[in-house]
Amino acid sequence: MRRRRTGGPGRVVLVGGGPGAADLITLRGRRALAEADVVVTDRLGPRALLAELEPGVEIVDVGKAPGRHPVPQHEINRILVERALAGQHVVRLKGGDPFVFGRGGEEVAACLDAGVAVEVVPGISSAISVPQAAGIPVTHRGTAASMLLVNGHDDPTQATLAALADDTTTTVVLMGVERLGGFAEAAVAAGAPHDRPVAIVESGTTSSQRTTRATLGTVAAAAAAAGVQAPAVIVVGEVAAAGLLTRLTDPARSRTG
Amino acid sequence: MRRRRTGGPGRVVLVGGGPGAADLITLRGRRALAEADVVVTDRLGPRALLAELEPGVEIVDVGKAPGRHPVPQHEINRILVERALAGQHVVRLKGGDPFVFGRGGEEVAACLDAGVAVEVVPGISSAISVPQAAGIPVTHRGTAASMLLVNGHDDPTQATLAALADDTTTTVVLMGVERLGGFAEAAVAAGAPHDRPVAIVESGTTSSQRTTRATLGTVAAAAAAAGVQAPAVIVVGEVAAAGLLTRLTDPARSRTG
Repeated sequence: MRRRRTGGPGRVVLVGGGPGAADLITLRGRRALAEADVVVTDRLGPRALLAELEPGVEIVDVGKAPGRHPVPQHEINRILVERALAGQHVVRLKGGDPFVFGRGGEEVAACLDAGVAVEVVPGISSAISVPQAAGIPVTHRGTAASMLLVNGHDDPTQATLAALADDTTTTVVLMGVERLGGFAEAAVAAGAPHDRPVAIVESGTTSSQRTTRATLGTVAAAAAAAGVQAPAVIVVGEVAAAGLLTRLTDPARSRTG
Repeated sequence: MRRRRTGGPGRVVLVGGGPGAADLITLRGRRALAEADVVVTDRLGPRALLAELEPGVEIVDVGKAPGRHPVPQHEINRILVERALAGQHVVRLKGGDPFVFGRGGEEVAACLDAGVAVEVVPGISSAISVPQAAGIPVTHRGTAASMLLVNGHDDPTQATLAALADDTTTTVVLMGVERLGGFAEAAVAAGAPHDRPVAIVESGTTSSQRTTRATLGTVAAAAAAAGVQAPAVIVVGEVAAAGLLTRLTDPARSRTG
């Protein structure tokens, strides 16, 4: 049941909505949503959670605007602050976790600068849970002892290239579909073996999840052939090899036994 | 309410219990616990979740045994498989996420090898949520563009040292308290600046959370002076500097406004 508010100061709660499936939000995040007057969401916030809101809860979608341009970050910050100063309980619903490439830190800083009470509720990061849903453990004893998480929009740094060349590190790339070919080329040029396994998991944890497997040498062509599209999580490393935990890759089989 | 089982094949669900607070489990994880006949837990599984189980649910603690030695992994695997083959619905409750240094992959493999149906429910990883609870975003626009997650039991690899020396990478170390001094020394020897910020967050997300801040050059002495103890999450990088999101570090202030 929604707790009806009776005035008092407004506030902002950044809620990590998780990777997509509605039941992969935390209990704390679900409660925050149930107490919201307004939910500010975007294209990465799980849509299934919006369908569960009670009538009367306002939804502000900052992922689309007239002309299909997303709302700029400073404008999102302004919306959060203005609503809270007006006394509303604002939930900023984000995909994954608010502090993993979510610009959540900027939203928190904007609230603090304006004297608005703000809280962060962690979410299940796509970086770990989406590979998992495809049967890929980001760490695995004897295979991967560390994980690097990078943003595919950026040029790979020396540290990223070192991780890609390391046999025992799993590299997870978010937002990397667009520049995947160049990324793989840079990895091989830096010393990563061309046969290092790569898995691309599209729409992870949803009913349209799909995994494409390749290697650093073949992934650009494989992605093109499969018509891979964002949002997708890219995993580079030995854990991405097919068959490590084979049956987990088929939820129907693993769920029904 | 617990769904009473009426026979049928057993199964194993690995559930990520999150970093400690009872309401940081997912809805899916909570449901799995509510349907369990037996819960297999250890010292990292959030204890608060066990208190919520219905009477009659058996708890097997594999984190302690006579003489205080933990149960070996192969023995845990055997317990999971035997219980499931006997028709029980087994939940393997783990701290954080099952595939982040949790040896969850080995437990899944053991189930698959034995023909036991197995499912994995992701959890909130301590690696991201514990820094967050101390006001530290592991990524932050303009400050940290990537995150490396390592296990402090291992000697740092070349890739780890490259990340530590990189100005835009956050390095998160789990299980690193014991070897912290040597880790920091190796980082500085590899080119990381001795004034790079380090934060140590003990008992993250619980009522006894405590943060100790230092630099790579001072952290060994600071940890000794503070009496830092495991479990703790260590964050190395510019995001660990005090004051980035200051007021978030005090939950009382951020929650009440």
